[in-house]
Amino acid sequence: MVQTEFQIRVRYGETDRMGYVYYGNYAQYFEVARVEALREMGVSYREMEEQGVHLPVYTYSVKFLKPAFYDDLLTIRTQIRKLEGTRIYFEFETYNGNGDKINTAEVVLVFFDPKSGRPCSPPEKFAQLILKYS
Amino acid sequence: MVQTEFQIRVRYGETDRMGYVYYGNYAQYFEVARVEALREMGVSYREMEEQGVHLPVYTYSVKFLKPAFYDDLLTIRTQIRKLEGTRIYFEFETYNGNGDKINTAEVVLVFFDPKSGRPCSPPEKFAQLILKYS
Amino acid sequence: MVQTEFQIRVRYGETDRMGYVYYGNYAQYFEVARVEALREMGVSYREMEEQGVHLPVYTYSVKFLKPAFYDDLLTIRTQIRKLEGTRIYFEFETYNGNGDKINTAEVVLVFFDPKSGRPCSPPEKFAQLILKYS
Amino acid sequence: MVQTEFQIRVRYGETDRMGYVYYGNYAQYFEVARVEALREMGVSYREMEEQGVHLPVYTYSVKFLKPAFYDDLLTIRTQIRKLEGTRIYFEFETYNGNGDKINTAEVVLVFFDPKSGRPCSPPEKFAQLILKYS
Repeated sequence: MVQTEFQIRVRYGETDRMGYVYYGNYAQYFEVARVEALREMGVSYREMEEQGVHLPVYTYSVKFLKPAFYDDLLTIRTQIRKLEGTRIYFEFETYNGNGDKINTAEVVLVFFDPKSGRPCSPPEKFAQLILKYS
Repeated sequence: MVQTEFQIRVRYGETDRMGYVYYGNYAQYFEVARVEALREMGVSYREMEEQGVHLPVYTYSVKFLKPAFYDDLLTIRTQIRKLEGTRIYFEFETYNGNGDKINTAEVVLVFFDPKSGRPCSPPEKFAQLILKYS
Repeated sequence: MVQTEFQIRVRYGETDRMGYVYYGNYAQYFEVARVEALREMGVSYREMEEQGVHLPVYTYSVKFLKPAFYDDLLTIRTQIRKLEGTRIYFEFETYNGNGDKINTAEVVLVFFDPKSGRPCSPPEKFAQLILKYS
Repeated sequence: MVQTEFQIRVRYGETDRMGYVYYGNYAQYFEVARVEALREMGVSYREMEEQGVHLPVYTYSVKFLKPAFYDDLLTIRTQIRKLEGTRIYFEFETYNGNGDKINTAEVVLVFFDPKSGRPCSPPEKFAQLILKYS
């Protein structure tokens, strides 16, 4: 399936008093990583949302192997593992500047129609792009 | 004018690697403090917004005298200094557990009508409450 | 095992443009909830850390059932499920003001000695308190 | 004096339910902008801190002219206005993709020696670089 790489530099405000990136901040890194993965495939998440399809997170899990530190330039490998019904499955691996894998994560999002208040099918164009990259 | 006190405990994720509360996080503390100040006066900021009046920040300035640390229980004194035209002026003083003043801040917000895309008068009920507490 | 309840009010800055609490912000809620759970048992997380035992997160997973909104007063039920070797297992359930369960989460943390750079046993006092509440 | 430009893309989690970038999040943008300004001059903020000089914020003020939105690619112009005694003065202007100036800000930071607990002179190498770029 689709796999992309994205680099992100740790901001000062994202560290905590242990000197590590606070565990809660990775959620934002993975959000940026998946938006950039979609952009590379030609999908603008912003446009999709403005056309009336939301993509809230259903489940998120992360396993921390090593900490990240201030000013580290992290590489996040993003993989769209599958598109199934109204759900899309993302997997992430984060690497530090030494090439060490520092964490792995999985996020499942749901295509959601805010008008009906219910899950919905992914937009046609989106589904075709995913298929094309599979 | 109206003056209220609000207590807030520093979260782990709000500290940075210096061990201090990250300077950017105080904006959120002052937001909570002003919402609670309004609540004490009988105004629900959420309701006001749902009735179609937004209150975005126009200017914000803060002066740091001492740092705050993880788990500190801070006291924020909030004062509504004035309501003038389409603007409302808040002043804040933050104290740590020893009673030391650790920072002061000022926020000016604008009553804003998202439909017209322009500043607007404060809701009648709101203006009367401010007057009453003056 | 130990079970506690903690209430937390959603801050404006914690919402996103969908109007929901951003999925990444729950990590901070659960951090506060577990620190307050420990405090209720007589353990100060801050003190423990200042005595040289860190408690970084090893795994974190969350399942979202419903969104939370600005100004919601959420109730988080925290349970210490077990203390095993160098790890401690927390479970969380979040409820909104209507009593709806809006998400569930699990966090596993590791007792860690920053001097040796290795996992370590929990402090004696801490282990005894957990035992006492079991 | 030194002036640099830095681009930053708005993350989903940085927006609030008005659909704007939350006012508190700009502090982090300006932090990144000043770190990158220093990097361009050949100064690593991380290294400076690891050599024992901290640079906490003394004052911060910001004036919002227009909101920024999700996925906007913002340009921040950073200027080191002066280095005076133990203080350094930064000025920022933020522009959106249409070239509109959306806010201006000023941050004053203090060179600080955590060992003595007092303000200190900037590191020699740092002061010379600032002079060189002036």
